[in-house]
Amino acid sequence: MKGNVIVGQSGGPTAVINSSLAGVYKTAIDRGAKKVYGMLHGIQGFLDEQYVDLSDHIKSDLDVELLKRTPSAFLGSCRYKLPDIHEQPEVFEKIFGILEKLEIAYFIYIGGNDSMDTIKKLSDYAIVTGKQTKFMGVPKTIDNDLALTDHTPGFGSAAKYIGTATKEVIRDAMGLVYNTEIVTIIEVMGRNAGWLTGATALAKGEDCCGPDLIYLPEIPFNIERFVEKVKNLLETKKSVVVAVSEGIKTEEGKYVCEYGNTSDYVDAFGHKQLTGTASFLANLIAGEIGCKTRAVEFSTLQRSASHIASRIDINEAFQVGGAAVMAAFEGDTGKMIVLKRVSDDPYQCTTDLYDVHKISNVEKLVPRDWINKEGTYVTQKFISYVEPLIQAELIPVQVDGIPRHLYLKK
Amino acid sequence: MKGNVIVGQSGGPTAVINSSLAGVYKTAIDRGAKKVYGMLHGIQGFLDEQYVDLSDHIKSDLDVELLKRTPSAFLGSCRYKLPDIHEQPEVFEKIFGILEKLEIAYFIYIGGNDSMDTIKKLSDYAIVTGKQTKFMGVPKTIDNDLALTDHTPGFGSAAKYIGTATKEVIRDAMGLVYNTEIVTIIEVMGRNAGWLTGATALAKGEDCCGPDLIYLPEIPFNIERFVEKVKNLLETKKSVVVAVSEGIKTEEGKYVCEYGNTSDYVDAFGHKQLTGTASFLANLIAGEIGCKTRAVEFSTLQRSASHIASRIDINEAFQVGGAAVMAAFEGDTGKMIVLKRVSDDPYQCTTDLYDVHKISNVEKLVPRDWINKEGTYVTQKFISYVEPLIQAELIPVQVDGIPRHLYLKK
Repeated sequence: MKGNVIVGQSGGPTAVINSSLAGVYKTAIDRGAKKVYGMLHGIQGFLDEQYVDLSDHIKSDLDVELLKRTPSAFLGSCRYKLPDIHEQPEVFEKIFGILEKLEIAYFIYIGGNDSMDTIKKLSDYAIVTGKQTKFMGVPKTIDNDLALTDHTPGFGSAAKYIGTATKEVIRDAMGLVYNTEIVTIIEVMGRNAGWLTGATALAKGEDCCGPDLIYLPEIPFNIERFVEKVKNLLETKKSVVVAVSEGIKTEEGKYVCEYGNTSDYVDAFGHKQLTGTASFLANLIAGEIGCKTRAVEFSTLQRSASHIASRIDINEAFQVGGAAVMAAFEGDTGKMIVLKRVSDDPYQCTTDLYDVHKISNVEKLVPRDWINKEGTYVTQKFISYVEPLIQAELIPVQVDGIPRHLYLKK
Repeated sequence: MKGNVIVGQSGGPTAVINSSLAGVYKTAIDRGAKKVYGMLHGIQGFLDEQYVDLSDHIKSDLDVELLKRTPSAFLGSCRYKLPDIHEQPEVFEKIFGILEKLEIAYFIYIGGNDSMDTIKKLSDYAIVTGKQTKFMGVPKTIDNDLALTDHTPGFGSAAKYIGTATKEVIRDAMGLVYNTEIVTIIEVMGRNAGWLTGATALAKGEDCCGPDLIYLPEIPFNIERFVEKVKNLLETKKSVVVAVSEGIKTEEGKYVCEYGNTSDYVDAFGHKQLTGTASFLANLIAGEIGCKTRAVEFSTLQRSASHIASRIDINEAFQVGGAAVMAAFEGDTGKMIVLKRVSDDPYQCTTDLYDVHKISNVEKLVPRDWINKEGTYVTQKFISYVEPLIQAELIPVQVDGIPRHLYLKK
């Protein structure tokens, strides 16, 4: 019999963050953990002694399957950064006090860069104070901007949704234009890294031309050149679809969306109106070219559309959760699980361990040669990298026509 | 052997308008039509002699299946209203000239109210001038605002997407809030009828509380009362989700979205910034209550998300297409196929015929007693009506991880 396990979730949600939770839970139970606790709202809730016994909430294999198909953090998330140990040792004393009370031997934290900072500080504190608890990190983020892992769980499902939705938006616009022209601007998440925006290119195939232009935040955006490009495209086709990252900036380093908010204009209630990158560019094109335009924001569905999650992604998210438990059970601490691609075609991927002390906050951007010379599309290298990550689906369990989720009964 | 058939698509796209096309094509071929033509971009393209022989494009049963799963108008759509016969008889002469050239015996038009006007005028003209061509209409619209049919093909799939996406958005927000509050405003299509906005209630179930408030355009919207409601809700829960129709108006008859655009403010490029209903209300709540807010627009995916279309809807869309062909083959003309619900539970529905001369332009609104007294939610009657229409799925045919569509090779 192994000691008790506690697991938490932190940072922005993804469609598969609960699959990692399922992987932690099931692996821990199967390998003999006495109890598996879940902290509510990550380390922040834990500090308030908010936790549950997961076996009260995951009662069957069907529950595990539902959990794998449930988007967003089942346990609740937080955006809380631990202080440095020497600054506020009392925070760490409190945490370890609760860990001791619950007899926690293994602490698993699912999250992004900030969450790995939590693992680092807690494992350091444990080593310094001679505590035996093992601390392991499980990566997740739709943004795919972690440097050490081939890709991050959550990215594949976001990319699959974005590729699918882009294709449907392209089809929608194509069916409408006859003697009219329409320019559609799609806005995609990812402030600094263009992984998600590049995924709109997945819409391209035998049956779809894909977006006409794709602008990643890695390349400075030139507004005049963009208008020129769209004008040229409209000479040969009636529907032009452009994908832009929410984070594109001009050469002056100013976010494009800020150009729509240059005045101090406030509405009747005294509030400043904010406009997004897509609506700014759609308004711009309407004004400059005079054609019909549309702005489409994929919004939070990019990270929560579990109804069309990638099965590869769900499985890998499960695997990294399981791998973290196994590493902890074997005595590892202060490490994060990473994904290591063995081969592209046929796609093969395994897990590995990475020392959290070595994690820097460098964001992994799309390599320059995965973007075309002009900075208006991704190249085949990008597609070859992403395509394996969006393969297959895990069919939602539908009840009354709507996907069923597992939820935390309170 | 039957004579030649021509079919066209008109008006706004839906996720299943091509399933009706598939129904027309397959039924016509199976019942012995010589040729089945498709007009490109409806009657507008037809006037320019834009048409294809559909057997060049739908070559196998697999193609039929792909067509059923392809959103937006495969043949292209139009928004073109025929003139009155006495105003421009030459338009009708031209149309019937082309029909004669192609030896068309049966003319099927898939569309909304305006398209039925086309059927009316063409069938009138044929009767008056002694032409033998039969004209039949096939209804479609996501808005479900046609008065004569129990519901419209396209609505069920839009409702299923909206219910699913709403649930995922609710889950997303719930996972985020701990010591914070967040108000999410979801904006749904439907300018005058609240059918689609009401469908957000489908998110409600054992595993999800559903939206907290639902505002349909049928009921005047009171801004102050809305803010009060949200304030009260925030006293008992941290995440509040509100669904609003894009068409909600205040008691003064002014669209809520217009309140965000009261000034002549233009951006640096001289263009007026438009803001939607959801972003206006989100900004309002942020200002009045001071909490974090989010605006989510489901945008064109409401009508094009065939990746999660309702199987009931796809099948019914196919059936109404087939029923139109059969009625035309039996000599009917100037009629539209309607759906007639035989029973709610178990759900049973058949097709019927309706004289297009009797179609008025009255929009079918959500009945008052399907909305609660306060005007802030739909009642069980609404749910019982919609729920059968979103049942089951037609699994997308995935190629390289993205749903495959049938497309018109040019």
